[in-house]
Amino acid sequence: MIRKISGGVTAARGFSAACCAAGIKYQGRTDMAMIYSDTPCAVAGTFTSNKVKAAPVLWDRQIVESGCTVQAVVVNAGIANAATGKAGMDLCEATATYTGKTFGIPASSVLLGSTGVIGPNIPLDRITSGVSMMKEMLSSTQEAGTAASKAIMTTDTVNKEFAVAFDLPAADGSGTVTVHLGGMSKGSGMIHPDMCTMLGYVTTDCAVSKELLVKALRSVVPDTFNMITVDGDTSTNDTLLLLANGQAGNKAIVAEDESYALFCEALLSVCHDLAVLMASDGEGATHLVEMRVYHADTKENARIFAKSVVGSSLVKAMIFGRDANCGRILCALGYAGPDFDPAVIELFLHGENETLCFYRDGFVQPFSEEKAAAILAEKAVRFSCDMKMGTAEATAWGCDLTHEYVTINGDYRS
Amino acid sequence: MIRKISGGVTAARGFSAACCAAGIKYQGRTDMAMIYSDTPCAVAGTFTSNKVKAAPVLWDRQIVESGCTVQAVVVNAGIANAATGKAGMDLCEATATYTGKTFGIPASSVLLGSTGVIGPNIPLDRITSGVSMMKEMLSSTQEAGTAASKAIMTTDTVNKEFAVAFDLPAADGSGTVTVHLGGMSKGSGMIHPDMCTMLGYVTTDCAVSKELLVKALRSVVPDTFNMITVDGDTSTNDTLLLLANGQAGNKAIVAEDESYALFCEALLSVCHDLAVLMASDGEGATHLVEMRVYHADTKENARIFAKSVVGSSLVKAMIFGRDANCGRILCALGYAGPDFDPAVIELFLHGENETLCFYRDGFVQPFSEEKAAAILAEKAVRFSCDMKMGTAEATAWGCDLTHEYVTINGDYRS
Repeated sequence: MIRKISGGVTAARGFSAACCAAGIKYQGRTDMAMIYSDTPCAVAGTFTSNKVKAAPVLWDRQIVESGCTVQAVVVNAGIANAATGKAGMDLCEATATYTGKTFGIPASSVLLGSTGVIGPNIPLDRITSGVSMMKEMLSSTQEAGTAASKAIMTTDTVNKEFAVAFDLPAADGSGTVTVHLGGMSKGSGMIHPDMCTMLGYVTTDCAVSKELLVKALRSVVPDTFNMITVDGDTSTNDTLLLLANGQAGNKAIVAEDESYALFCEALLSVCHDLAVLMASDGEGATHLVEMRVYHADTKENARIFAKSVVGSSLVKAMIFGRDANCGRILCALGYAGPDFDPAVIELFLHGENETLCFYRDGFVQPFSEEKAAAILAEKAVRFSCDMKMGTAEATAWGCDLTHEYVTINGDYRS
Repeated sequence: MIRKISGGVTAARGFSAACCAAGIKYQGRTDMAMIYSDTPCAVAGTFTSNKVKAAPVLWDRQIVESGCTVQAVVVNAGIANAATGKAGMDLCEATATYTGKTFGIPASSVLLGSTGVIGPNIPLDRITSGVSMMKEMLSSTQEAGTAASKAIMTTDTVNKEFAVAFDLPAADGSGTVTVHLGGMSKGSGMIHPDMCTMLGYVTTDCAVSKELLVKALRSVVPDTFNMITVDGDTSTNDTLLLLANGQAGNKAIVAEDESYALFCEALLSVCHDLAVLMASDGEGATHLVEMRVYHADTKENARIFAKSVVGSSLVKAMIFGRDANCGRILCALGYAGPDFDPAVIELFLHGENETLCFYRDGFVQPFSEEKAAAILAEKAVRFSCDMKMGTAEATAWGCDLTHEYVTINGDYRS
């Protein structure tokens, strides 16, 4: 059984975290964070599908694919190292080399992340002095993990961390041991993950083979981070990393058995919670929007339909205005791409205590405007669509489009 | 030579127009329009690619594909007949039958258009009394065409009409005759045409075969109406119709000769001007945004890159805020889809009097913030990208994302 516990990246044994105010761009707040494992970790990762891949993405991907173990992740916020040429990679190499020397580990075991305004160069000296500062502050406490999750925020309004615990057979055959898995993420704008989200870091003390770590991550991402959208803009820096140091003492997971299934369930739980919280905390958002599509012909089509609805600017604006202009949901399903029969589908709006059917038999149905307004006033606005085609289903999450989103992004750099 | 002239759908010989206040939804303004040709017209049309096709789209498409000639177009604004079932088609049939009887023409020569809020049913009696009223008011004056272009507006802030004249060889061999081509369109939100725009009507007195009329329309749409976006939402009602009654007395165009080329050029001119004005008048827009992509490998990829940039919420918001956060242009090119090399492309911001290069050699370049702010204060903001891959090019148009867009669409139905 998966048990939710408090904490984030330091919930798992052997992981510590730190953060500092390196003064890269922001004043009066922390803007660098690191995660450190006192023993080497197996690692899996997924990265942006944007053709413009930031240097840290290229750096991390190379390490993840090499099969090296890793021990540290260094992240900065404020200015994104999105450079695609040699200078961007030089900065990565210099940062990893300095961090490696500082901690007495290979540069190839240092992963990097960078988020903020795309463009201006990041001063290396601030990064290296940040790394030195953080070495002194590393701590395995829950507070250290929480502080790190705050240091990587940009326009996020809340930090994002979740953790779970579950039991697996012990390595020595003596009953079970408790395994921990926790993560943090950030992302509020330029969120339309297409492999993974902006920046997400999940740590676990589970003993699990690299191969199955990769497989587990790939199995949960399509239904979690890849099912959220804030504005349809897929970032150049999207990165999701999963580090496992094996310190829980469980019998190592090397096959797709019951333990693997439980591990996947734990990973799904944390990734789901992080992803939904990111959608809910989209730039300027006042509502979380959920769209569930069921009885679709294929899983892939269910995902496409659900994402089309939560990505529609008109649906997003109507939810901000709490206006039940539900024809827009139908319209967004229609231009999603896959075929369906508009004459048979049914569309619902779900409140805490009531469900309204607003489209059926090819027509927008009459509904109580009063009831609809009450449901649209809830913090989470949930729609569903019965496609009447098959058995597949998917859920996507987004947020409303608000004046505040425009204000934030009309003047992002200041 | 193509000469721009004033006017719209009544610029061509034999075409008249009318409008009236039918009281379908709006109060105190005209909300129905019609175009009428005193002789039968060949017709070409393109329609929405949305899987949910409104009944008027199905009605018109059936007529356009049947090879019938047409004489009338009846359009209503306020409530969109977006019904996809029998009731939607019943309303179309009743409207066309009534119009046919009123004018003494077949119901199959009556085309229909409908725009406004998707959903509630349209009262047939208001439509028929509108048709009767308009019969008494039909006029071939320029003013009647202009009034019709105003009656089909929804959230548009300006009416949209353009016309041109050009000379073609006379049918009787006696020198040349003047041919006219003019059009009107409407569309401000739910604009992301994917075959054509929301509602556009072009009339001409040119004598041209149905086959070449269709071919000419297909040749100009991909670079005009299909290259604009306001919000990425492809409407269920998009319709573009081109009617030709042959009254100019030119030698009929039946082959792809010089006359056909001139006709295409005239059609391109009017469609381009209507499309760009629609982008510029996008809901809440304060700026027109233009993205030109050149030296691309293929025309199709050039179009994809250009549309990705003008469709990006983050690019749109930054233009509203006049903030030269130009990394977002690079990001939007990156997630467009086709391959390119970010290390070699060059990106420019073009002002009336000055051009700034803001990305080159894989880096965001330093530029004068003062100059950039001055350029971003211009009404039309123009970007370009040299892909350094080939010889293809394309231009897309959009608008900025503003508080006003959110306000309009948060409360569209009231």
